[in-house]
Amino acid sequence: MSKIKDTKLAFYGMQRYRWALDHMPVLSSIIQSTRSKPLSGLRIGFCLQLTAETAALILGAKMLGAKVSASSGNPLTTDDAVAAYLDSMGINVYGWSGQTVAEFAKCADAVMYDLPDILSDDGAELSVRAHTDDRFSRMNILGGTEETTTGVHRILALQSISKIRYPIIAVNDADTKRMFDNRYGTGQSVIDGLLRATGLLLASKIAVVSGYGWVGRGVAERLCAMGSHVIVTEVDPTRALQAHMDGYEVMPMAKAVQKGQIFVTCTGNSKVITAEHMCKMHTGAILANAGHFDVEIDVASLGRGHLVRPGLQEHKICGKKIYIVSHGRVVNLVAAEGHPPEIMDLSFSNHLLCIMYLCNTKMPNLIHKVPNNIDEYVACSALHAARIQIDK
Amino acid sequence: MSKIKDTKLAFYGMQRYRWALDHMPVLSSIIQSTRSKPLSGLRIGFCLQLTAETAALILGAKMLGAKVSASSGNPLTTDDAVAAYLDSMGINVYGWSGQTVAEFAKCADAVMYDLPDILSDDGAELSVRAHTDDRFSRMNILGGTEETTTGVHRILALQSISKIRYPIIAVNDADTKRMFDNRYGTGQSVIDGLLRATGLLLASKIAVVSGYGWVGRGVAERLCAMGSHVIVTEVDPTRALQAHMDGYEVMPMAKAVQKGQIFVTCTGNSKVITAEHMCKMHTGAILANAGHFDVEIDVASLGRGHLVRPGLQEHKICGKKIYIVSHGRVVNLVAAEGHPPEIMDLSFSNHLLCIMYLCNTKMPNLIHKVPNNIDEYVACSALHAARIQIDK
Amino acid sequence: MSKIKDTKLAFYGMQRYRWALDHMPVLSSIIQSTRSKPLSGLRIGFCLQLTAETAALILGAKMLGAKVSASSGNPLTTDDAVAAYLDSMGINVYGWSGQTVAEFAKCADAVMYDLPDILSDDGAELSVRAHTDDRFSRMNILGGTEETTTGVHRILALQSISKIRYPIIAVNDADTKRMFDNRYGTGQSVIDGLLRATGLLLASKIAVVSGYGWVGRGVAERLCAMGSHVIVTEVDPTRALQAHMDGYEVMPMAKAVQKGQIFVTCTGNSKVITAEHMCKMHTGAILANAGHFDVEIDVASLGRGHLVRPGLQEHKICGKKIYIVSHGRVVNLVAAEGHPPEIMDLSFSNHLLCIMYLCNTKMPNLIHKVPNNIDEYVACSALHAARIQIDK
Amino acid sequence: MSKIKDTKLAFYGMQRYRWALDHMPVLSSIIQSTRSKPLSGLRIGFCLQLTAETAALILGAKMLGAKVSASSGNPLTTDDAVAAYLDSMGINVYGWSGQTVAEFAKCADAVMYDLPDILSDDGAELSVRAHTDDRFSRMNILGGTEETTTGVHRILALQSISKIRYPIIAVNDADTKRMFDNRYGTGQSVIDGLLRATGLLLASKIAVVSGYGWVGRGVAERLCAMGSHVIVTEVDPTRALQAHMDGYEVMPMAKAVQKGQIFVTCTGNSKVITAEHMCKMHTGAILANAGHFDVEIDVASLGRGHLVRPGLQEHKICGKKIYIVSHGRVVNLVAAEGHPPEIMDLSFSNHLLCIMYLCNTKMPNLIHKVPNNIDEYVACSALHAARIQIDK
Repeated sequence: MSKIKDTKLAFYGMQRYRWALDHMPVLSSIIQSTRSKPLSGLRIGFCLQLTAETAALILGAKMLGAKVSASSGNPLTTDDAVAAYLDSMGINVYGWSGQTVAEFAKCADAVMYDLPDILSDDGAELSVRAHTDDRFSRMNILGGTEETTTGVHRILALQSISKIRYPIIAVNDADTKRMFDNRYGTGQSVIDGLLRATGLLLASKIAVVSGYGWVGRGVAERLCAMGSHVIVTEVDPTRALQAHMDGYEVMPMAKAVQKGQIFVTCTGNSKVITAEHMCKMHTGAILANAGHFDVEIDVASLGRGHLVRPGLQEHKICGKKIYIVSHGRVVNLVAAEGHPPEIMDLSFSNHLLCIMYLCNTKMPNLIHKVPNNIDEYVACSALHAARIQIDK
Repeated sequence: MSKIKDTKLAFYGMQRYRWALDHMPVLSSIIQSTRSKPLSGLRIGFCLQLTAETAALILGAKMLGAKVSASSGNPLTTDDAVAAYLDSMGINVYGWSGQTVAEFAKCADAVMYDLPDILSDDGAELSVRAHTDDRFSRMNILGGTEETTTGVHRILALQSISKIRYPIIAVNDADTKRMFDNRYGTGQSVIDGLLRATGLLLASKIAVVSGYGWVGRGVAERLCAMGSHVIVTEVDPTRALQAHMDGYEVMPMAKAVQKGQIFVTCTGNSKVITAEHMCKMHTGAILANAGHFDVEIDVASLGRGHLVRPGLQEHKICGKKIYIVSHGRVVNLVAAEGHPPEIMDLSFSNHLLCIMYLCNTKMPNLIHKVPNNIDEYVACSALHAARIQIDK
Repeated sequence: MSKIKDTKLAFYGMQRYRWALDHMPVLSSIIQSTRSKPLSGLRIGFCLQLTAETAALILGAKMLGAKVSASSGNPLTTDDAVAAYLDSMGINVYGWSGQTVAEFAKCADAVMYDLPDILSDDGAELSVRAHTDDRFSRMNILGGTEETTTGVHRILALQSISKIRYPIIAVNDADTKRMFDNRYGTGQSVIDGLLRATGLLLASKIAVVSGYGWVGRGVAERLCAMGSHVIVTEVDPTRALQAHMDGYEVMPMAKAVQKGQIFVTCTGNSKVITAEHMCKMHTGAILANAGHFDVEIDVASLGRGHLVRPGLQEHKICGKKIYIVSHGRVVNLVAAEGHPPEIMDLSFSNHLLCIMYLCNTKMPNLIHKVPNNIDEYVACSALHAARIQIDK
Repeated sequence: MSKIKDTKLAFYGMQRYRWALDHMPVLSSIIQSTRSKPLSGLRIGFCLQLTAETAALILGAKMLGAKVSASSGNPLTTDDAVAAYLDSMGINVYGWSGQTVAEFAKCADAVMYDLPDILSDDGAELSVRAHTDDRFSRMNILGGTEETTTGVHRILALQSISKIRYPIIAVNDADTKRMFDNRYGTGQSVIDGLLRATGLLLASKIAVVSGYGWVGRGVAERLCAMGSHVIVTEVDPTRALQAHMDGYEVMPMAKAVQKGQIFVTCTGNSKVITAEHMCKMHTGAILANAGHFDVEIDVASLGRGHLVRPGLQEHKICGKKIYIVSHGRVVNLVAAEGHPPEIMDLSFSNHLLCIMYLCNTKMPNLIHKVPNNIDEYVACSALHAARIQIDK
């Protein structure tokens, strides 16, 4: 019933799943220590990046009794081997790498047609359908979870128009998610993506980081640590002042484009880097986006480019060569492997515990924070796995 | 009318005040750009650390029309030269360095007897009097401001017993205060205090930082930057996990005492380091406290010590020599000069703007956050002073 | 005449060569600014890692008039696309990825059979043949260059037995090589190799760096910068003391094996990590070698492993799982792409200038340092390319 | 016989001496483990900074049997309490703080008039007298030691004119001196001096470090670590390139003066910062010198200034206020306490062992390196004191 690229890749998918799970001690211990099958009789619909770490969450939900349907949270980021393995384990999987936007949408629809009781989102694709698409707007849904800031914003937008139909837990806002995945996870994986896509030296490069939220901070810190000279652009004065106090140069993008050699957008906004900006850059400038959507760099304004390395496209503008990493799609997922499993362990443990919580607890139809005891349980369990004791 | 140590020190106090004000561009510009005298007819009572930076705030309030009384926020931290200069400028000053606890209390009383309309606190000394001391509990008070976390906690405690009598703005919670003074200010000034008090090499030392809030983070970051090997102790699992992710060793204090050479407490709690802990330390261990009160290290449990350097006392316990910086009082203020003026510029600009806001605005009798536009104004003004432009 | 894997890969090789050359401004400017053909009539034999950057050196030598033969400097590290491109450009290339040791040796022989006038080595393979192999020991050779510390040691060993037959310039010892490639190049590319091979989070990991020479320093610095907790092992007391002063833990390997999660050998010695060591490690430990030869980790003592990710082999020892990156071969070249082009630009510019110098200058039959003016020319040229002016 | 400021300060000098010695474990163990009196019958003349750490060396020499005369190595840096304590212990001491240049010279003469057998210098004052001053040029001298780069250069200059008269060991060149004191010692103590002299925030400041040798590197690293934005100026292209690779901005001084807020000279050259430079700086710029002599900043070109804080002088030039730390004399010694004892422990252990070596060993009349076994002994002993074991 699944729609995936190639079932023969299942073995490699299993390998990757096992490696990930080996480095997700919190999730493993939750699954192993849960004796009963608390999710029996439920179907969960996931719309998440289909990576090895997500497989650990999805198969964890299955081991706890759920039936599962899953589609890809992003047209480019599906690991086809992982998808094949999930399919081989009895999951309904709809997703493959290199989807068109239409295919991507159809796959999310397919999850909805499986009539899930719980919607587990990375970007609110399923919850938006449940609220605004006539085909699904009367489905009976128990609750939802949301992984990202972007998704939370979309749900808040729904909520501002009319009431939401079921309780949604914003996993994104758990301390053990928000303070770790954006900073440590993205920080490292953006470096990883830049290295794989370009193969260039980071030391001595002038790197412009746009946005100084948790993601921007993590990226700036790691770039600086690799020897880059970091410039920060921001719209928020308090964040700009923090970047300044952290020792970075702070300036408007219009000036930064005249200095930068590498650009990483981390804002969540669109058209952070425009055609006009690119026209003023040095030839050879490299542009990557670390935000959820591929809207931060105005790639559309560039003509067709050609590939110079896997994941790196050369474009001409104003007589200069500009290089775009992964077509401006989220660099750490497309050019590298996304967050490392140790980070997803924290996020997905929250996610799995929240799904169980939604099944057991009557909550009002609102966006909710992750219950404190779940957040704290995840932190304690991660410390335990690292053999760390702390004071009481 | 003032009670200070020595009026002849006024010249040096002026020198220090001018140097501080030269490095407080935001506060300066607020004072200079305010044409009218918005504080005319009001008396403000300050109970703050009497440093050169505080003089800039106090004299700023005077220039804007207020009458001012001021007492010291801490028995040890008054700069007698600054006190003399303030006195010479017509401020009622009650405070000197090396006060007893009783003298300290009398000085705060003296401020209250001057019948201030607005109470501006660092540790809630004045507001506690206004609520719990029969002598002052019927005074007519317009509003209050509070600089520290400790003070905010004391006011919340008052509020939990009965209603508070006037609006109080928690300056401590302004982004431009909280995110800067605890981290950049304390981070640097604790290093400064340790260097002045000990004269020892920080590189290669094993330093134990207790508490990983904003203060602990700032201290750990700077110690690490100076080449120390940092161990963090914490009671909160999420913070402990962050310290772990930041690359520090994390362990309980009972273990850390067997490894550490330098200890800095940054918790806000009492008896973080007990006699039992000190008994297990290596001979030569150096202990400093960066928290507001001198309760984090159980100094009382040690017998009398003797001075080995200015600000450093040697004690014997369990046959070992243990060195206490500034009697366990807040190291950056007692052994060094507290936060640098650039940091106090942010805090005190919030403070002065909040005092003006209290005068102009009817607010309910509650603890309030700093109004967003004040916080943002301070950030923008600080960027402007640093000649930094940002995107819109 | 070449022996390579697949001539059809030439297009991709050209792409990689161009990307590399675009980021090697010093080498490019030397080639472009040299009007005459100073290497006309000479054949140069290269035995270097056959990467895109090496192609820039080799084709540079050709553009300056030389005929060139080249074999791979390492059995695993040849980029087959680059080899194909070099072949298509008229270079005699002998090398492919995944060679046996015997094949590797035959390829170096093949270069010698082409009767080169100048031998340009990475590990002294050609020069050792010229001195100890009867087939080649009477060949008339004008001079040699050597890229690595290991190669210089081998030539010094030759020199200690009898006289060497021609002047050899130790490019390795140029300041613009030694101080840059080992530290900035290896530092980054080891991180790159670890990320690609494992996909794991470096932050919070306990990483053991063995050896604190320039390579070890670079690796320790970058690991620390990525958030790892770094332990250093050393045999030299002054270097150990430096690691201690730099804030790292220093201990013998026998202790470090009980703590480490990631191990990187950077010593140039053999059996730095033995079977006995591995037996005492935590299960899941990851081992990588950054030294020239695959002798630092005693991989042979492990039974056969199986692949869990590209470049990562799982072995069982003493009931534990141990993971070896790239079979213990030089991690930054085998699991990543070696030094970035900006670094090789410095090394290979020295290399090319030394080859020209050997042609023009009569030197005694000894190992020579790179002439100061060459070294300085490279530094100045690199600054010029980065648009940096300095004082006189 | 001594000429010092105030004998009554001896108690405080003893206190400081003991604190220093407590943190000089290598020197202590050399003194304690040497049973015989190897320096009996010899007089040693020291011309060193008269600090608590130097007292540990001087009294060590005395405990090993020597008679000792000592003068100050710098007109401003004598600790008068230490001088008093040394005097009370039977050392001939000639020095006090705030000497004129003439007084300083007379004090060095006085040491020579005591007819020392061994000359132990910090800046070659004694050895220059022994070679160029007719009063002393026929004295019979056994040997000398020299602590600084500057001193070694002066001796090399003597050597280039004629032969030197006795063997001199360049302690400065020991690995355990050169690699530690310049980098870790000066790095920290320059920060210390800047904090004490200015009390300003280092985070966010634009700091210009002139010279990127070991001292400049240490200073740049610590400034960066405290949150400053660091600009480096250099005359040597290879060092400039290293600074660039380390992520700093590199530019000529003529440009840097337009950006910098804090300047630290670390070059060993004169007129690194001229009146013309100062005229182009921002008002409020702070200038400090970390080099041996007060010649790097052209202080003489400024008119008379006035003190704004202890150790900080305000000058007017071109209508701007420029602040000079410690009159341009070596900032870490004059505004702070010089190298911490743990660093001087390494230098002075080399020094004391070299003095003993000179007594026991016939050496040619040349400048010599510190014997390898002395250097290595110091490293091993320092590791031992830190309870660190290393591999063999």
